[in-house]
Amino acid sequence: MGTTTGDHHQHPHQWVNLSAKRPFAKALKSDLTETFFPDNPFGGLGDLPAGARVFRVLQYFVPILEWGPKYTLSNFRYDLLAGVTIASLAIPQGISYARLANLPPIIGLYSSFVPPLIYAVFGSSKNLAVGTVAAASLLLASIIGADVPAAEDPQLYLNTFYTAAFFTGVMQAVLGIFRLGILVDFLSRSTITGFMGGTATIIILQQLKGMLGMKHFTTKTDLVSVMHSIFFYRHEWRWESFVLGICFLFFLLLSRHLKTKVPKLFWVSAIAPLLVVVIGGIFAYLVHGEEHGIPIVGDLKKGLNPISISDLNFQSRHLTTAIKAGLLSGFLALAEGIAVGRSLALMKNEQIDGNKEMVAFGIMNIVGSFTSCYLTTGPFSKSAVNFHAGCKTAMSNVVMSICIMMVLLFLAPLFKYTPLVALAAIIVVAMIGLIEIKEFRRLFKVDKFDFCICMVAFLGVVLFSMVIGLSFSVGLSIIRALLYVARPTTCRLGNIRGTELFRDAKQYPDSLSLPNILILKLGSPIYFANAGYLRERITRWLEDEESVRKKNGEDIHHVIVEIGGVTSIDNSGIGMLNEVHANLDRRGIQMALVNPRLEVADKLMSSGFIELVGQDWVFLSVNDAVTACRFNLQESRNKEDRA
Amino acid sequence: MGTTTGDHHQHPHQWVNLSAKRPFAKALKSDLTETFFPDNPFGGLGDLPAGARVFRVLQYFVPILEWGPKYTLSNFRYDLLAGVTIASLAIPQGISYARLANLPPIIGLYSSFVPPLIYAVFGSSKNLAVGTVAAASLLLASIIGADVPAAEDPQLYLNTFYTAAFFTGVMQAVLGIFRLGILVDFLSRSTITGFMGGTATIIILQQLKGMLGMKHFTTKTDLVSVMHSIFFYRHEWRWESFVLGICFLFFLLLSRHLKTKVPKLFWVSAIAPLLVVVIGGIFAYLVHGEEHGIPIVGDLKKGLNPISISDLNFQSRHLTTAIKAGLLSGFLALAEGIAVGRSLALMKNEQIDGNKEMVAFGIMNIVGSFTSCYLTTGPFSKSAVNFHAGCKTAMSNVVMSICIMMVLLFLAPLFKYTPLVALAAIIVVAMIGLIEIKEFRRLFKVDKFDFCICMVAFLGVVLFSMVIGLSFSVGLSIIRALLYVARPTTCRLGNIRGTELFRDAKQYPDSLSLPNILILKLGSPIYFANAGYLRERITRWLEDEESVRKKNGEDIHHVIVEIGGVTSIDNSGIGMLNEVHANLDRRGIQMALVNPRLEVADKLMSSGFIELVGQDWVFLSVNDAVTACRFNLQESRNKEDRA
Repeated sequence: MGTTTGDHHQHPHQWVNLSAKRPFAKALKSDLTETFFPDNPFGGLGDLPAGARVFRVLQYFVPILEWGPKYTLSNFRYDLLAGVTIASLAIPQGISYARLANLPPIIGLYSSFVPPLIYAVFGSSKNLAVGTVAAASLLLASIIGADVPAAEDPQLYLNTFYTAAFFTGVMQAVLGIFRLGILVDFLSRSTITGFMGGTATIIILQQLKGMLGMKHFTTKTDLVSVMHSIFFYRHEWRWESFVLGICFLFFLLLSRHLKTKVPKLFWVSAIAPLLVVVIGGIFAYLVHGEEHGIPIVGDLKKGLNPISISDLNFQSRHLTTAIKAGLLSGFLALAEGIAVGRSLALMKNEQIDGNKEMVAFGIMNIVGSFTSCYLTTGPFSKSAVNFHAGCKTAMSNVVMSICIMMVLLFLAPLFKYTPLVALAAIIVVAMIGLIEIKEFRRLFKVDKFDFCICMVAFLGVVLFSMVIGLSFSVGLSIIRALLYVARPTTCRLGNIRGTELFRDAKQYPDSLSLPNILILKLGSPIYFANAGYLRERITRWLEDEESVRKKNGEDIHHVIVEIGGVTSIDNSGIGMLNEVHANLDRRGIQMALVNPRLEVADKLMSSGFIELVGQDWVFLSVNDAVTACRFNLQESRNKEDRA
Repeated sequence: MGTTTGDHHQHPHQWVNLSAKRPFAKALKSDLTETFFPDNPFGGLGDLPAGARVFRVLQYFVPILEWGPKYTLSNFRYDLLAGVTIASLAIPQGISYARLANLPPIIGLYSSFVPPLIYAVFGSSKNLAVGTVAAASLLLASIIGADVPAAEDPQLYLNTFYTAAFFTGVMQAVLGIFRLGILVDFLSRSTITGFMGGTATIIILQQLKGMLGMKHFTTKTDLVSVMHSIFFYRHEWRWESFVLGICFLFFLLLSRHLKTKVPKLFWVSAIAPLLVVVIGGIFAYLVHGEEHGIPIVGDLKKGLNPISISDLNFQSRHLTTAIKAGLLSGFLALAEGIAVGRSLALMKNEQIDGNKEMVAFGIMNIVGSFTSCYLTTGPFSKSAVNFHAGCKTAMSNVVMSICIMMVLLFLAPLFKYTPLVALAAIIVVAMIGLIEIKEFRRLFKVDKFDFCICMVAFLGVVLFSMVIGLSFSVGLSIIRALLYVARPTTCRLGNIRGTELFRDAKQYPDSLSLPNILILKLGSPIYFANAGYLRERITRWLEDEESVRKKNGEDIHHVIVEIGGVTSIDNSGIGMLNEVHANLDRRGIQMALVNPRLEVADKLMSSGFIELVGQDWVFLSVNDAVTACRFNLQESRNKEDRA
């Protein structure tokens, strides 16, 4: 299609391939594959015999079948070290985060025993260490606590946590099975940065309770309520607790600092929290801390996770609370877990599959909810320690799990004397790292809109609540996405001097505009949301150019539209092109199309638009189109001369 | 800025303009202008003196100041004819649609008197004829009727209509003032086609009541309820009514057919409805129709619109119903009015401004709600008649309004005898034209997804309700928009034989792939919603190509990424590029960028990504990049040879 119009042109006029129409079924299959299987999980499966194929699919769903058989003793040496290191972190973190969620501390330990075992079987990341997370713990506490006050009915409160974890698991598994990993993509980096920073801030504020040894505190999380609460109960402040807290903080910060200076000593900072707990516990035991203003954790039962399946509570009037808490915190945990897994995998040049991870997280949380665990995911701090400790496979999670089992079976009662202030100090230090001031500054420099999205999340969380901060920030991101869609960039192209290249005339102010010819470039898909805008914009380009050129006594005879950047077009878009064509036609201007892409060429052909423009006026490059236009102009001038 | 790497290349290596960074304020202003003022209403204002400038702005807001002073008698001749013609249509349509909304018929006439006057002052379209519309009438009746049964408290029902019209007006004016015409863009052509078709279908079904002369009927609109109702009350069927209805239908269809055959006789079909009303009225009067199974309209009061401002009802518990009905029907009316105005303007090669139209519609509905009118807009049927009758300006609306005023003052009681069956026949014929079977078929052929969106609207309206049909269809359109955004097209480029052009290798299967070099093209904006996908997709391109090329013993040394189609990038997108670069780096592959656009180049510079890739590896065209890569490959081979 297309004819050779320009003989004096150095390339022969290349034909645009308009005939490569794909059958509908094939196009649909390819679209669905791109949407839901962008990672092509079963690629290259066709070459294998049937038995091997089944095993490969099974391996895909249960990754331990893939790495298990190849597992070696030398790998185990690394995983053992990593596992013990993260276990030493899991004990204080488990207790702290459970307290952050207003749960009995032992639940935090339970949650570091069963879920890591499940993850080791189903998880595809080699670096992730499983455990509870601070942000989700606080979020759960704030949503569930608003409906079921922890102090009034602790058992109901706990059961609602299990139920929420169950729904989290179901949601995560369903999202994974239906390959809806795409949803997590809608949590942008800016949202996560702002949300994490805001959450870390309010968690640190919450720790003032522990640091000051207070007994009464607000259940709200916003800045105003917390500060009010602190000063309202100021008679409860205990200097003993505060002094001890400052010492712990100082020690933890020092070990963190050591890590940044001497990266090989990362293990010092990894076991520092456990040291703080142990030293704090011994100290509290020796001085009878509880009687001297240093509150302690209190009794911890020996023994493994009790089965909690009968505690799940589906009939109560708190079901909607459990579902809401489960879905929101699950979504958040998913975003953190996948982001962490992905960034660690990238450092080792590996890939992880978001959808598979979701299924693994889902199974882990469902099983967790049956065995007295609350929401778990792959927290950043623990996973980073695991990574630096040199873990090779998910076996490090198994090692951690066994360590925690030992603690649960034999050592749990010893942690009774852990001072709350030690836990507060551990949380504060873990949270400080999550407030990325540098990233805020970078965002401000690079992209103001992203900075806004980030700040909305941060301030929303700090001043109102976590749900408000998160949802407003996501809403703003989606509005932005829709605006991108609704207001695509267009530009006028100019010829770069001395070349056959045509580029944005605004970006290259030296480029030449061609007499009687206007060249426009459209980008992005054209469809209902932007068709109206594009029609007005094209008309404006035309009118602006006409008024500029009229001053030189020049008319526009040809409009060349470069649509190589248009990746798809819908019915409204085709309607718009028809209107633009009709408009140009009435002004006596010839339209030319350049480089329609496969899907777009398909639709333009079947809707008859190509017919309307004329197949001779569809070109492969702007240069070809310009040559044809010039030839056409020359011919009509010759005709005029003859007349 | 790129250096001249390829001496053996025919163009000198052009520099990419990376330095044209726009200051933030300027970029923001340009973005806001593109988003909210794509039509550049005050362009070229700067050249005028202050007084003229104020007048121009006033003219912008009150278009009658623009065309009024230039108005001539010869224009008036056209407008008079058009105005009388549309008045003859407005009378039967006004009465019919008011009955469709279960309102007293006189309200339909009131609504054709005041709003057209207001529109003549503020409206920017020269072709629109103002009046009530069938779809919105039925929608209002179904929403308001569900809360306030018309039969129980007719006055409250009527007042709720006024209140809804008030909220419609406020919403439309606000949308227009804040230049949110962009929202109407989200009603795609496919949605409107399907919705209109579905609504026309259910409206025709509703007319079975009138055609069969029935007294009882369901207030629901779905197919099942209506059919059930018709057969449940089958003892009410009156053959007299039905026979008369069939005669009217036949006559109206004949006049419509005449129009398509002899376009000059359009006025026959335009006045046919009035003829049907008059003939039907005389017939019913003569035979005492009401006593013989031909129900009539009943008493109509003489006199102009009573003031209804005190009837607006803001305190009642029906306020939310009024707001919901007002906003939904207003949105719909807006979409129809603007679409109609735009398509008629296009035929005359004029432009209308959606935002200005919204303000005009808004003022018209607010004033309407104060003067006993319900929702009005620019209906398709009336406006098309106005257009074909040769209207020149909005003066035709004034003429129509005066005709209706005459009717209200002197003739209204005569319409008492209008048989309901005549109104039913008029509505049926008006609705038949809105079911665009051809368009459905075309959509199926061109775009299956658009066809689905259209069918969801159609079937949703017919089988469930108008609100369900509309909202599901819009939801599906938005999901599609987000999918476009989340799954942008990428492709591998190949060299078209014998040229320097690089195009999609899938579309041009004959194109050549270059040894050791992989060329990819990204399109669409890159940001949080698709950054994750693009990272995986690029990795997959790389791995697929590597496995293909490995068979020939070939490695990939260079990846060239064409980003000329990337119109913007956000923080997550830059993060993605960083990760891709790191990934390529680890594999020992050099990355090259081609043709970053203005906004993108800005951000890549300020985020330091260009620094990372190296400014030498940013090119203006794929060809330049290829030349540089080849040169680089040759050099490293030379080095190997020397070693």
